[in-house]
Amino acid sequence: MLEQIEQRKTKKTEAADELNAMREELIDLANAAKASKLPVIITIDGWSAAGKGSQIAKLIKYMDPRFYDVESIRTPSAEEKRMPWLHRYWRRLPKQGEFLILDGSWYHDTVKPLVYGDIDKDTYKERLDDINVLERQLTDDGYLLIKLFLHITCDEQKKRIERLAANPYTAWRVDEQDFADNKIYDKFFKRYDKTLTRTNTEYAPWHIIPSNDKTTAQFEIMRIVTNAVKGAVTAKAAGTKYAETPEFTPCDVKPEKFRLVKTKKLADTDMDKSLTDKEYGEKLNKYQDRLFELQNICYQRKIPVVICYEGWDAGGKGGNIKRVAAALDPRGYEVKPIAAPEPSELARHYLWRFWNRLEKDGHFTIFDRTWYGRVMVEVLEHLTPETRTEMAYQEINEFEKMLTEWGAVVIKFWINIDKDEQLRRFTERQNTPSKQWKITDEDWRNREKWDEYEKAVDKMIELTSTDFAPWTVIEGNDKKYARVKALKTICRALEERIR
Amino acid sequence: MLEQIEQRKTKKTEAADELNAMREELIDLANAAKASKLPVIITIDGWSAAGKGSQIAKLIKYMDPRFYDVESIRTPSAEEKRMPWLHRYWRRLPKQGEFLILDGSWYHDTVKPLVYGDIDKDTYKERLDDINVLERQLTDDGYLLIKLFLHITCDEQKKRIERLAANPYTAWRVDEQDFADNKIYDKFFKRYDKTLTRTNTEYAPWHIIPSNDKTTAQFEIMRIVTNAVKGAVTAKAAGTKYAETPEFTPCDVKPEKFRLVKTKKLADTDMDKSLTDKEYGEKLNKYQDRLFELQNICYQRKIPVVICYEGWDAGGKGGNIKRVAAALDPRGYEVKPIAAPEPSELARHYLWRFWNRLEKDGHFTIFDRTWYGRVMVEVLEHLTPETRTEMAYQEINEFEKMLTEWGAVVIKFWINIDKDEQLRRFTERQNTPSKQWKITDEDWRNREKWDEYEKAVDKMIELTSTDFAPWTVIEGNDKKYARVKALKTICRALEERIR
Repeated sequence: MLEQIEQRKTKKTEAADELNAMREELIDLANAAKASKLPVIITIDGWSAAGKGSQIAKLIKYMDPRFYDVESIRTPSAEEKRMPWLHRYWRRLPKQGEFLILDGSWYHDTVKPLVYGDIDKDTYKERLDDINVLERQLTDDGYLLIKLFLHITCDEQKKRIERLAANPYTAWRVDEQDFADNKIYDKFFKRYDKTLTRTNTEYAPWHIIPSNDKTTAQFEIMRIVTNAVKGAVTAKAAGTKYAETPEFTPCDVKPEKFRLVKTKKLADTDMDKSLTDKEYGEKLNKYQDRLFELQNICYQRKIPVVICYEGWDAGGKGGNIKRVAAALDPRGYEVKPIAAPEPSELARHYLWRFWNRLEKDGHFTIFDRTWYGRVMVEVLEHLTPETRTEMAYQEINEFEKMLTEWGAVVIKFWINIDKDEQLRRFTERQNTPSKQWKITDEDWRNREKWDEYEKAVDKMIELTSTDFAPWTVIEGNDKKYARVKALKTICRALEERIR
Repeated sequence: MLEQIEQRKTKKTEAADELNAMREELIDLANAAKASKLPVIITIDGWSAAGKGSQIAKLIKYMDPRFYDVESIRTPSAEEKRMPWLHRYWRRLPKQGEFLILDGSWYHDTVKPLVYGDIDKDTYKERLDDINVLERQLTDDGYLLIKLFLHITCDEQKKRIERLAANPYTAWRVDEQDFADNKIYDKFFKRYDKTLTRTNTEYAPWHIIPSNDKTTAQFEIMRIVTNAVKGAVTAKAAGTKYAETPEFTPCDVKPEKFRLVKTKKLADTDMDKSLTDKEYGEKLNKYQDRLFELQNICYQRKIPVVICYEGWDAGGKGGNIKRVAAALDPRGYEVKPIAAPEPSELARHYLWRFWNRLEKDGHFTIFDRTWYGRVMVEVLEHLTPETRTEMAYQEINEFEKMLTEWGAVVIKFWINIDKDEQLRRFTERQNTPSKQWKITDEDWRNREKWDEYEKAVDKMIELTSTDFAPWTVIEGNDKKYARVKALKTICRALEERIR
């Protein structure tokens, strides 16, 4: 793609009027984006010394600074390195109606680290795949994503680095590495080109900005951004989906087809499994001790562990989690209870709040309810349009795959009880003063929709039981049996991982 | 204080029944704390190898892990070092109804770094003062704070370190430093003792746990925690304030009296100040250019800059901020618009969300509305009891002092317009379709309370114009004048700081 770009000159005086007009328009468009709750992400990548910083300054100069955030992406910090590599981008996701402008984006973590030898080719390729997934997930969720690559020639880059180095006020901005990089411009060229080609998709096409001439770059960026925001605002008002017209033939990226393991319907669960008190005491001790040992190993090897609890109301999730937690060194895990999302969470991609709740590697994150609310309560209560919830199975599989790529063991439990057992427990809660806080009207309402829920759960388990993050249905009528099975399942999964 | 502690032995068998009873009680108490929205912080400090980790594990073993969070405090990371030193603790504040258990707390950043030479004596003393402020602010806000110091003797410490080092499974937990520290046990003893004495206050007294014998320690911790939680839950139900009875004579810490600069009433503001277009153009350019230079210096010297905007509705805050932001490198600042708090924010100390929004050093944080909502809207709309809002002036001065200790330049603007000018702008907004989103019914309602607001603002400015963070009232009837004055004030303050 890069070889098709022709550098050209634009006279400042000639462009001035049109630039001013676009700037005025952009102010109105930013207000319109705010009003129509359109979230916008502009990624600005390109060659060193291509002028990313000053172009961003020009782009936003007249925008209301309350509605945008500019973030500079540098080498990941020690803390960021302990999280999935895309975590630091997810964390920064803008709210609906706001602009996020990334000075160096997720592309920062591809070409440079590869050329410098910080990541190998497989990781590089995996990251390009991850990027395509990320960008599809964001655009499917209504984010407007504008990707800009600032392109300069080898000579121009050399000239700029030398100029920066010669000026005492800017000398600190360049170092040996910049000169060394310029010497292998061709190598970078090939690599950038490949990266651009492989991530130029229908849903997130690239704009390559000829940037030898600053006015040309400024003009092009302004033109592209105003056009895209206008298009997206208009489309949103019309209830349609906006897509930019790619400047280059997009590559054909199909969502990954995940291998699913065979699962059973909930109705086929054997609900009679149970343990005697004696069996329970022995096995509980045994697996808790083993889990403690395994946690220690995970801690030392920096293996992240993500445990997900879902299940019927009154299924016994709380007590089950308690037995798992009791086995663990408390400094090494956190339990995250998931309730209805807050306004700031509703204003972002639904996976945002889960990305945000992950603990660093070596630690356990235990979710008490999870992202699967997307395909249960959000479907049954019609909180989210079906077109979006139908995409969630794929999105969730992709999310969990990224967790496993990060090195995580992902364990998912559905705690199953039958309808009679639930009624028994509801009634007991209702009649026990110290337990009444545990039961709400909503629980009774949900119970009325048992059959619908069961269908949704069957579908969820069928479509998200990947080989890297399979569901375990836990027979929960007997709490003792359920607790031991959860502990045992976790131990098995960790043993498998550390082998 | 430490020399008063007698180590003693408790027989496991004798303590077992009582321990079990307390454990059961603690489960109920945690539920009661949840129900009555009591936030609890338990800090666990003490000697190396005193058994903090295993005591925490014993304490929480039967508690519901969804209601507590255990955090291990280690040496601050590179990112944490770029924030105020208490930032990493504020960030972790628990919600109402939840327990935060700190394995090493803010005390971690006092004795050890002093003995190791990482901080000097003045910093150490300043930190003790900061701690007393923090603990008062938290307890005044209804947090139950339980401070535990695990005390072991020199011989016992030596024995434990040797034992850990000899066991291949635990050897990684000790290093040369631990042995070296044990050799200067006496030095640590004196320093710990001083620290405990200086932070043993009426509102946050210390509990020193004789920990040579683990059962004794376990028993004492359980006893203290259950008593305190019971006391606090009971007091909260009765609408009174709980205070533990100090075991040691508390030191008398008075809130710092801040030197206030003399201020004028809003009514005495000269509202006729204005600039011609020509003056405006020249001065705007001049101060914007200067601000850009100053930002560069702040960035290189890692000076944090915190700019606060308050003012009448339609006072022109947005446009003013825009002119400041336009001068800055967008990678070096963030504008934080402050709206009504979200549920997770309401469930914590009101300053929490502001601590959380600070940018790291070298960067500008620009608040569009601030923590001063506490003494304006929260007073006038009766959102918060007067006893609490009356404390806010002191709390806010303390907060801003911590920011300046961190190295920040704190600049606070009140954009003042008169009542006629506001009416003119409201009407214009109402009549201009593209500006209608800016005006709401709430604005009109607030306008009706103009006189009450004016009184509150006068009081606020009078009581929070400290010499380190004074207010600047900006004459805002003429927007041009207001913008230039803001820019000029910022430049002056930064020049003062970098001299």
